[in-house]
Amino acid sequence: MAPSDRFVSENSFHVRYAETDAMGIVHHSSYIVYFEEARSHYSRVRGVDYAEFERSGYWLTVSEVHARYKVPARYAQLLTARCWIEDLKSRSVVFGYEIVDAETKTVLVTGYTKHICVNHQGQVTKMPDYWRAALAGERNST
Amino acid sequence: MAPSDRFVSENSFHVRYAETDAMGIVHHSSYIVYFEEARSHYSRVRGVDYAEFERSGYWLTVSEVHARYKVPARYAQLLTARCWIEDLKSRSVVFGYEIVDAETKTVLVTGYTKHICVNHQGQVTKMPDYWRAALAGERNST
Amino acid sequence: MAPSDRFVSENSFHVRYAETDAMGIVHHSSYIVYFEEARSHYSRVRGVDYAEFERSGYWLTVSEVHARYKVPARYAQLLTARCWIEDLKSRSVVFGYEIVDAETKTVLVTGYTKHICVNHQGQVTKMPDYWRAALAGERNST
Amino acid sequence: MAPSDRFVSENSFHVRYAETDAMGIVHHSSYIVYFEEARSHYSRVRGVDYAEFERSGYWLTVSEVHARYKVPARYAQLLTARCWIEDLKSRSVVFGYEIVDAETKTVLVTGYTKHICVNHQGQVTKMPDYWRAALAGERNST
Repeated sequence: MAPSDRFVSENSFHVRYAETDAMGIVHHSSYIVYFEEARSHYSRVRGVDYAEFERSGYWLTVSEVHARYKVPARYAQLLTARCWIEDLKSRSVVFGYEIVDAETKTVLVTGYTKHICVNHQGQVTKMPDYWRAALAGERNST
Repeated sequence: MAPSDRFVSENSFHVRYAETDAMGIVHHSSYIVYFEEARSHYSRVRGVDYAEFERSGYWLTVSEVHARYKVPARYAQLLTARCWIEDLKSRSVVFGYEIVDAETKTVLVTGYTKHICVNHQGQVTKMPDYWRAALAGERNST
Repeated sequence: MAPSDRFVSENSFHVRYAETDAMGIVHHSSYIVYFEEARSHYSRVRGVDYAEFERSGYWLTVSEVHARYKVPARYAQLLTARCWIEDLKSRSVVFGYEIVDAETKTVLVTGYTKHICVNHQGQVTKMPDYWRAALAGERNST
Repeated sequence: MAPSDRFVSENSFHVRYAETDAMGIVHHSSYIVYFEEARSHYSRVRGVDYAEFERSGYWLTVSEVHARYKVPARYAQLLTARCWIEDLKSRSVVFGYEIVDAETKTVLVTGYTKHICVNHQGQVTKMPDYWRAALAGERNST
């Protein structure tokens, strides 16, 4: 499901107890946070830092979230979040995600998030070149 | 946006500080929890109780979540969550949502969630009649 | 447990599903958020608004949190959060809390939080008079 | 602060955006979740698994939480959670914690949690020997 024609970042982590619910499984909203951390990690391994991006006057606001839940995860399970760029325009970006069991690689949840670049005055704006290049992989990680 | 041809439940609440993030606005994952509480409330005003539904051996597992973010909300803002049935089948249900400012009625976020009825052995199963009727509004609230 | 010699605010709410965990009960960290919303509500009924307090250049940072868990709560349970001032100084305030079942009044969780007034440069500072007076109840709610 | 006379586990992680709040810092309730994951990790490196402990019929319910906040953390900051046993009795255990900046080792937050061993019928009970021994370090990790 994760595309084979582009860079896919991977970060692994254990399910925290607080992320489960009374069904005994990971609450569906927790995956939205896993997606978010996955794209933070994507930037990191691409050599850029979203915290710095923000400090330089920009935000990538979330305009849309979608998740499809296939197999539940449980407390302490080791998961891997895969993240890639689905689409990259001058003012927007779409990230794709796959949450899999770190050992069996069973796909548990898939999804995407859409983002718009805005400045701290709230105006839609072009992403700075270094950031766009880094997301696109045109700049090497350090 | 909320449909005019069917029952729409409404519950209002203040944004909690913990639901905000470093952008100074409500974190996008918080709305997924608002959606969830909105459908709990929907059931309640339809005269049934999801907690009871669970105790009787069923779950409405979440198979899909979608949210579209239009206008940010902030700490302490009074919001109203509107919830309705988009689609109701014997084994599945789709809820629609709209989160609006309680005073201005500005639409902030819209979305839907898809659910499948399973028993506690994890098998897809038909919803019990009383539950389906209640969701459909064929049984009065008490 | 809630003191009888001073003002105690009360706000009630249903437990959200996302606030439960795999033990089938409300996760212990959820009560820390209930405490927070309880002190937001305390301010509100005292006629002041913490959001406004922040916009005017101040923060009440949390320096300490304590909670004692007696009886678990469950999804959809109607809870009441009681909140009062334990101690009020020129630069600090201690809030006390009690989370009870809204119907039986059984005490589920008790706790306190300590706060220090800082300005947006991070310096410890005196609370503005109107705020301190409002917390102390020397100004009527509107 | 972390004791030098006993085993102290350490796990490191990046602050997730969702864990921050409108003050621009990590929300105080997030540390309660960091504590929880720290004690999960403590058990893991001691060679036992809390998920297994639960499946075998026990819970370590939280009876008390305390946290003291010294220095705020921010989005993407790499933190280390230190965890150790403060006190271990046949039916209860107290964990101590320290959250530090992973690089500078500055102590950001300290705290403890108290737990009581109960069976799935809710009765206070003695911890199974293998679990108590593992927590105490009398059994090697594998």
